[in-house]
Amino acid sequence: MNLTTVRDLYRDREKYVGQTVKVGGWLRNIRDSKTFGFLVMNDGSCFSTLQVVYTDQLENFSDISRLNVGASVIVKGTLVETPKAKQPFEIQAEEVVIEGTSMPDYPLQPKRHTFEYLRTIPHLRARTNTFQAVFRVRSLIAYAIHKFFQEQGFVYVHTPLITGSDCEGAGEMFQVTTMDLNNIPKTEDGQVDYKKDFFGKPTNLTVSGQLNGETYAMAFRNIYTFGPTFRAENSNTTRHAAEFWMIEPEMAFADLEDNMNMAEAMIKYIIQYVLENAPEEMAFFNQFVDKGLLDRLNHVATSQFAHVTYTEAVDILMKNNDKFDYKVSWGVDLQTEHERYLTEQVFKRPVFVTDYPKEIKAFYMKLNDDNKTVAAMDLLVPGIGEIIGGSQREDDYDKLAARMDELGLNREDYDFYLDLRRYGSVYHSGYGLGFERCVMYLTGMSNIRDVLPFPRTVNNCEL
Amino acid sequence: MNLTTVRDLYRDREKYVGQTVKVGGWLRNIRDSKTFGFLVMNDGSCFSTLQVVYTDQLENFSDISRLNVGASVIVKGTLVETPKAKQPFEIQAEEVVIEGTSMPDYPLQPKRHTFEYLRTIPHLRARTNTFQAVFRVRSLIAYAIHKFFQEQGFVYVHTPLITGSDCEGAGEMFQVTTMDLNNIPKTEDGQVDYKKDFFGKPTNLTVSGQLNGETYAMAFRNIYTFGPTFRAENSNTTRHAAEFWMIEPEMAFADLEDNMNMAEAMIKYIIQYVLENAPEEMAFFNQFVDKGLLDRLNHVATSQFAHVTYTEAVDILMKNNDKFDYKVSWGVDLQTEHERYLTEQVFKRPVFVTDYPKEIKAFYMKLNDDNKTVAAMDLLVPGIGEIIGGSQREDDYDKLAARMDELGLNREDYDFYLDLRRYGSVYHSGYGLGFERCVMYLTGMSNIRDVLPFPRTVNNCEL
Repeated sequence: MNLTTVRDLYRDREKYVGQTVKVGGWLRNIRDSKTFGFLVMNDGSCFSTLQVVYTDQLENFSDISRLNVGASVIVKGTLVETPKAKQPFEIQAEEVVIEGTSMPDYPLQPKRHTFEYLRTIPHLRARTNTFQAVFRVRSLIAYAIHKFFQEQGFVYVHTPLITGSDCEGAGEMFQVTTMDLNNIPKTEDGQVDYKKDFFGKPTNLTVSGQLNGETYAMAFRNIYTFGPTFRAENSNTTRHAAEFWMIEPEMAFADLEDNMNMAEAMIKYIIQYVLENAPEEMAFFNQFVDKGLLDRLNHVATSQFAHVTYTEAVDILMKNNDKFDYKVSWGVDLQTEHERYLTEQVFKRPVFVTDYPKEIKAFYMKLNDDNKTVAAMDLLVPGIGEIIGGSQREDDYDKLAARMDELGLNREDYDFYLDLRRYGSVYHSGYGLGFERCVMYLTGMSNIRDVLPFPRTVNNCEL
Repeated sequence: MNLTTVRDLYRDREKYVGQTVKVGGWLRNIRDSKTFGFLVMNDGSCFSTLQVVYTDQLENFSDISRLNVGASVIVKGTLVETPKAKQPFEIQAEEVVIEGTSMPDYPLQPKRHTFEYLRTIPHLRARTNTFQAVFRVRSLIAYAIHKFFQEQGFVYVHTPLITGSDCEGAGEMFQVTTMDLNNIPKTEDGQVDYKKDFFGKPTNLTVSGQLNGETYAMAFRNIYTFGPTFRAENSNTTRHAAEFWMIEPEMAFADLEDNMNMAEAMIKYIIQYVLENAPEEMAFFNQFVDKGLLDRLNHVATSQFAHVTYTEAVDILMKNNDKFDYKVSWGVDLQTEHERYLTEQVFKRPVFVTDYPKEIKAFYMKLNDDNKTVAAMDLLVPGIGEIIGGSQREDDYDKLAARMDELGLNREDYDFYLDLRRYGSVYHSGYGLGFERCVMYLTGMSNIRDVLPFPRTVNNCEL
């Protein structure tokens, strides 16, 4: 007899009531008295648990009663509705097969554990309510993103992880090598001999797939990437991890406005998808993790996002400089405190800030006619600050090359990128969505370590 | 006026015929005479091209006629059916805006280029018919895999890329470091001082997410990974890349048979999805890349996969040892020539080979009652050989620990993995699908370098 999942029981309840079913799962709780007992099981297929009643009619009654939390069992019995109880139904067991016992030192006892403690057991924490909810929602968000882009004909591109180039000169990178660090091959003049390394040259882990992605947008028009990216920043914050996932759509024949429209539609689509497909998990977050979460998300899903230029935003912020640790003036990069003030206090909804000074943005962003600002956009959301950063790309060969020269970038390193402006250049735009920030935004979780299954941060690379 | 895509024109042809539309794209070909000309455009939204007729009524007629292949244009005109021509419709242009010119040295001229040549221009090759088809199908396969698992409630897990452990001791790995290779910090006794490295210990790029995946299967029952994996093997073959993508589902309460059923259903689902969603691309492969492709895939999609034990397979192969470079006997690992013989000559369809000698399989595979073989399965398919490898996992703590001791694995390194057998162990199974092999199988492409957007192999890490 095949196992039925708890999810199936909830979904097709009418089909199963009164029937004999067989369910496998793990014990979250056990209560027993002399002649009968209750098992609370979770099988991971859905957030809800399943209650099982067993009695001393079972020959292994005492073995069952001696089980510890975390043990796995396969229960066969009749599904019975329980209109007066908290749960809608339970199983009256005819058979309880003990599949795997659990030790009394099981690290997840039926009590509240701190997130800090749970971070020390990344291989077990997904068995708790909070992390069941986080990682199911994470999975659903990932799928919603694929679904959103695929339904519009975007091509999913796997840009490379190991790379010989430093995309935006975006700071500290991890080096990848097969050389023996105890015995580094050296050239005659005493330098590292990269000809002896696997790729015959120095290589790093990517910080962005964008430039590669652009080459594919010039072939497929609309593409997106969804893959891991890496930053070797020595920062120990609740928002930074050394390894994280990023989504980078890139669209040909799309200007900054098209870009913002796509970003707004995507965010709304994701929210809608998760609210529809994980109602229990979202209710749990709303109750236990972040009290206004559902109101906020519903509000975002139905409101028009605001738009403000960087210059206008700076005007607003300067009038409130007394509220900030870092004072604002035209030309400075906005800090999280400023971003949150704009989206939470001023606009009270997600807001696109556009047209930043070129000096604080990347070389590939399209220069505006004022020669001072670039066609960039950041999307700020309440509770987080920046969640998306993007721009229209410079599609004029001469302007791009000049900007690279200004910044001291070596044209030869970007020959492939300049080629896109040599052969059929078109106006195009794209943005990057930090996946973990998106998960934090939708779950209300406040530490990036709690939305990554196995987080990597400074001095932390467990499992 | 918004741009319409070529894909929309083909999909909703009746809606657009007789209407004025605006389409942006890149020129694949130009033919001009004194008073009129034809542009063949592709906009990347679909495989088909769009023909545009322009005449000397346009004031930039001569500029258009001077365009090179690869140039980008935005055409406005009336969509007209052309019942007598090869293509179903064309656009009679009222306006052709030149968006970006192309140089006469454009590397993709309208002639046949070799795959070898195209590999030298990875940033442009996706603009050719073959690579348009390959990378659109690659994207569709990726989505089909997500769709297949999500529809069955599997949770998508992002297992880590940077790892402190060597999963199966699976051979050569890439090391990840932030130390200055010209100046490696050393301890007092002259060894590399990994305390000074980013994570405070040696770290590598993952070769498999399986062990991490198992921890999540014990929480969610059914999970899958889909992410990059790395092998620093110094092998220069048409089937190996240093960076490739892998799908690794893992299922609790699933034995070897459940595992094979899932793998078979998945392969059939993917084939069906691609045949339905990329009929033009698949017809192209069938005509120009791999003649019997469609017949073979249709056959696979509708036939039951065969099953044979390793021991039976070896009996069959030994009778044909004269055909092989490597002779077969019980205990040896099967080579591609043997695998292909089994699937192509003997069974003439995909075949699962099961129950391999434990010595040639990984430590975590479940020991069979014969104490000699393990509950492993490899799926072999015509034209490729092994495409999937999987097993039921050893869920018995004592047997697993004993096997690890036999192989000299350090129990402490696998404490998290042993914990899964301490706390509610259940029978469980999983497999790995090499994504690029899957793409090769479905497209008929014979070199892994031609199914990866930016392939990484020994001495090759371009872009």
